[in-house]
Amino acid sequence: MNKISGIAASAGIAVARAFILEHPDYTITKTAVSDVEAEIAKLESALEKSKGELQAIKERTLAELGEKKAEIFESHLLILEDPELISPVMDKIREESVNADYALNEVATQFIEMFENMKSAYLQERAADMRDVTKRILNHLLGIHYVSPAEINEEVIVIALDLTPSDTAQLNRKYVKGFTTNIGGRTSHSAIMARSLEIPAVVGTKNVLSEVKAGDLVIVDGLSGDVLINPSDAEVAEYKAKQEAYDLQIAEWKKLRDEPTVSADGKHVELAANIGTPNDVNGVIENGGEGVGLYRTEFLYMGRDKLPSEEIQYNAYRTVLENMNGKPVVVRTLDIGGDKELPYLDLPKEMNPFLGFRAIRLCLDRQDIFRTQLRALLRASAHGDLRIMFPMIATLGEFRAARDLLLEEKAKLRDEGKEVSDNIQLGIMVEIPSTAVLADQFAKEVDFFSIGTNDLIQYTMAADRMNERVSYLYQPYNPAILRLVKIVIDAAHAEGKWTGMCGEMAGDSTAIPLLLGLGLDEFSMSATSILPARSQISKLSAADMKEMAAKALQLGTAEEVAALVQSSVK
Amino acid sequence: MNKISGIAASAGIAVARAFILEHPDYTITKTAVSDVEAEIAKLESALEKSKGELQAIKERTLAELGEKKAEIFESHLLILEDPELISPVMDKIREESVNADYALNEVATQFIEMFENMKSAYLQERAADMRDVTKRILNHLLGIHYVSPAEINEEVIVIALDLTPSDTAQLNRKYVKGFTTNIGGRTSHSAIMARSLEIPAVVGTKNVLSEVKAGDLVIVDGLSGDVLINPSDAEVAEYKAKQEAYDLQIAEWKKLRDEPTVSADGKHVELAANIGTPNDVNGVIENGGEGVGLYRTEFLYMGRDKLPSEEIQYNAYRTVLENMNGKPVVVRTLDIGGDKELPYLDLPKEMNPFLGFRAIRLCLDRQDIFRTQLRALLRASAHGDLRIMFPMIATLGEFRAARDLLLEEKAKLRDEGKEVSDNIQLGIMVEIPSTAVLADQFAKEVDFFSIGTNDLIQYTMAADRMNERVSYLYQPYNPAILRLVKIVIDAAHAEGKWTGMCGEMAGDSTAIPLLLGLGLDEFSMSATSILPARSQISKLSAADMKEMAAKALQLGTAEEVAALVQSSVK
Repeated sequence: MNKISGIAASAGIAVARAFILEHPDYTITKTAVSDVEAEIAKLESALEKSKGELQAIKERTLAELGEKKAEIFESHLLILEDPELISPVMDKIREESVNADYALNEVATQFIEMFENMKSAYLQERAADMRDVTKRILNHLLGIHYVSPAEINEEVIVIALDLTPSDTAQLNRKYVKGFTTNIGGRTSHSAIMARSLEIPAVVGTKNVLSEVKAGDLVIVDGLSGDVLINPSDAEVAEYKAKQEAYDLQIAEWKKLRDEPTVSADGKHVELAANIGTPNDVNGVIENGGEGVGLYRTEFLYMGRDKLPSEEIQYNAYRTVLENMNGKPVVVRTLDIGGDKELPYLDLPKEMNPFLGFRAIRLCLDRQDIFRTQLRALLRASAHGDLRIMFPMIATLGEFRAARDLLLEEKAKLRDEGKEVSDNIQLGIMVEIPSTAVLADQFAKEVDFFSIGTNDLIQYTMAADRMNERVSYLYQPYNPAILRLVKIVIDAAHAEGKWTGMCGEMAGDSTAIPLLLGLGLDEFSMSATSILPARSQISKLSAADMKEMAAKALQLGTAEEVAALVQSSVK
Repeated sequence: MNKISGIAASAGIAVARAFILEHPDYTITKTAVSDVEAEIAKLESALEKSKGELQAIKERTLAELGEKKAEIFESHLLILEDPELISPVMDKIREESVNADYALNEVATQFIEMFENMKSAYLQERAADMRDVTKRILNHLLGIHYVSPAEINEEVIVIALDLTPSDTAQLNRKYVKGFTTNIGGRTSHSAIMARSLEIPAVVGTKNVLSEVKAGDLVIVDGLSGDVLINPSDAEVAEYKAKQEAYDLQIAEWKKLRDEPTVSADGKHVELAANIGTPNDVNGVIENGGEGVGLYRTEFLYMGRDKLPSEEIQYNAYRTVLENMNGKPVVVRTLDIGGDKELPYLDLPKEMNPFLGFRAIRLCLDRQDIFRTQLRALLRASAHGDLRIMFPMIATLGEFRAARDLLLEEKAKLRDEGKEVSDNIQLGIMVEIPSTAVLADQFAKEVDFFSIGTNDLIQYTMAADRMNERVSYLYQPYNPAILRLVKIVIDAAHAEGKWTGMCGEMAGDSTAIPLLLGLGLDEFSMSATSILPARSQISKLSAADMKEMAAKALQLGTAEEVAALVQSSVK
């Protein structure tokens, strides 16, 4: 048995055989062939085999996952049979006497680049499809054995360098019991996806890919961050017991679903959830969320080839508000740019996108986009307790400009006879150091703050949270971060306002005692973290945590703070 | 007359005809030619013309600027006559019946890419040379009229979109009286170069390139940031008078060269200079610098194909210390990464280099590099008042790790019998928000702070200072920045330590009254800013500025702070 450690990214324990997800090397060299017709025959055979595979996958997907999921393989089959792709490949082999894989790759690349350059989300998806189909044919031409994540049809643990968004989109929860990767951190895309799919995951192991062979028995412990390779029977039994204990704890937590969140000494706080789409509201209700603390509206703008209309947005916001049934819903206005791109906006590439033209910076410049969203939000406000917050506010001037646009649209809607609530709270994300430092000035003008720790930590430490080489600087417990959090909370309270937190830190069990002690009013987290957090808080004394937090603020390092929490909280 | 405004990047006034520096469009299309020999003749004629040009430039450069500067054109001539380049071009034209520009471009690109891939600084320079020569030949083949900045031989004002490092390296101060660009800010490369060359410059005008035609008379006012196009005779006279007044003021300032820096009410501060190479020390002495507040050691590592040895570094540091003649010299250890790359280190590309693996982060990982520099510094300490500071410190742990390496090397040198000073002050750059917020903890362990405002502002506002689209967020006067500066200064003073500042802000005439009021001990700036700053401080009351700064800290916006300074300082 071999045990390696990584970052516990999604809770739970999984035991299954390893499935190695590796993207093969498709380096292709041009070769002169003497027997052109044999080369054509090779291509035809590869096409036939690919077709057989795709038909089988399509039928299995249809049976197991339904029509919608099977559609993608239908379109792959259409590409495979498209003479516009295949004829030029044959011509190229004949005219240039070259190898089939070279000819195919040349022709397909031309199509893919053409599609990609067309700035249409639809055609870009076609480019991705053509890339998948080309790889499938190349597998046969080059003798590569590759199974895509979508084709997994037995219970496995996926082992990979990292999972791309395209990989995770293809994961079937029915078969993928867990996964573990070499790279990534708690806030990387794959970790967030794992928590949302409720699949146990360990990321950032550095070397799991080289340690595990296909078919090895693997245990992924998403609670401790351990990965066991070929465990003994006793270990399998031990972890199955741990898994059962965890399931029992989950059941215990579920009992807190309809309870308020109260510390051992009677202090109330609010536990809310971060969501990305109206569909996520179910999970919030199931997990006992007292509100939505962050509705990320970017997803409305993604996966389409033009901006979403006011009506599309209005319907989404209204659905969330109605389904939350009077509970507060904090909607963050568009936070695009940075690592999130919209092809149809055609924004210039930036050298440091995380320090670039994104979120409110973009919205104040592209007022057409912003005003449409504000109108949709204002109209939806009639259907629940809507709270609006602006992301990436760095200066008071930006907040005032954004607020004025909101007031203008509100006046216009009233003139048009539309219903708009009079009780919309208006707040800002505090995720830029300047705004945390100047929180007392902001507190006079906003209704609330929501601290976005993912970005606040990244900027305060000047360390890209996606960059492995500086991940040691992503330090939620650094006293500097805690001091900024305190400044913000105190500034809000001095003006009778409230402060929430919607970064990963709000759901972190080491951070929760500190945040309770610093006086945080609202904690917004992944829906699945709410019940464990409620259970944890019910056992803490807010008064003791206040004393502990005061000590933490006077420490020098994140390690000292973590040790203090460990020793203070049993 | 037409007047446009930009950012005053380098003081002084220039009046001259416009020289438009535009990089031509070298888009090349492949064409079949029927008369191959005529195409060869075209190429030969272009080669002849290019050769004639290069010889003329070489001779002029030799006469006016000396042998060293003329060498580059000698190597261009060698490339032009190199059969290894020219024969394959001729072959290609003959064998493929293609146009000469296409054939030349294909062959040259192959060589250039080969050189560039070889990870040798020497060969990368050869790639740059070959690119220049290729463009020169293409100019003749494509009928493009282009004059490179190196060939300017009459007094002009250069008008450009932006100036690349390669452009500025070629500027001849004798002829280039000033320049103005569409893009860039006060801290962009071109602005820093202009101040170092003492050429008046206005950057970031957005549209000067489309407003000015070649040969237009242009006034560049590097004091106000104005650019006048085709001014009237009266205006030319007015600006010439302004230029003379400025020259008189310069003369007045020169009288302060050997004076201390004292406010009107008797408070002493220290004015030091930022330097990049030992050659810059002359300018520091000439401009009355009381020390070197920032010696950027990166330049020692650039423009070579391997790391500089301990001996090379020792000699450079020793030279600076000796030439500063006992005055303090603050040396910053290697700050590479971010926008400064070293090809021979072969660092991976990063998505956000400003938030990446740079400076102390790199040095703590690559201890071989760091220890060599520390040894060279320790040995040089015997020759003057050396102070060492570490860049990009984000946590106490990083500072302690770097300090421990320094102490280890010091002990080793002593064991080797080498002389090392016992009075080396050890400090850190404060350029990351976390370190400013936690300055009280750092102040217990460091000897001094030096606030690096260029980066501190960039990280505190989360806005890339090189990115035009968010340049409105580069706000030195933002109250959040001032509060961080105050935290740092107060933390140092509480422990009996001193605080300097070595970002652009330290030499800014609006910032100086605020910084004096906040209690800054040392101001380090471009050497040419020292005398104006000394003059300004001599007219300010430190007590009044303290009151003003206290008010500024309670304001909400940078605009309000700037207005307060305007109204408080006559």
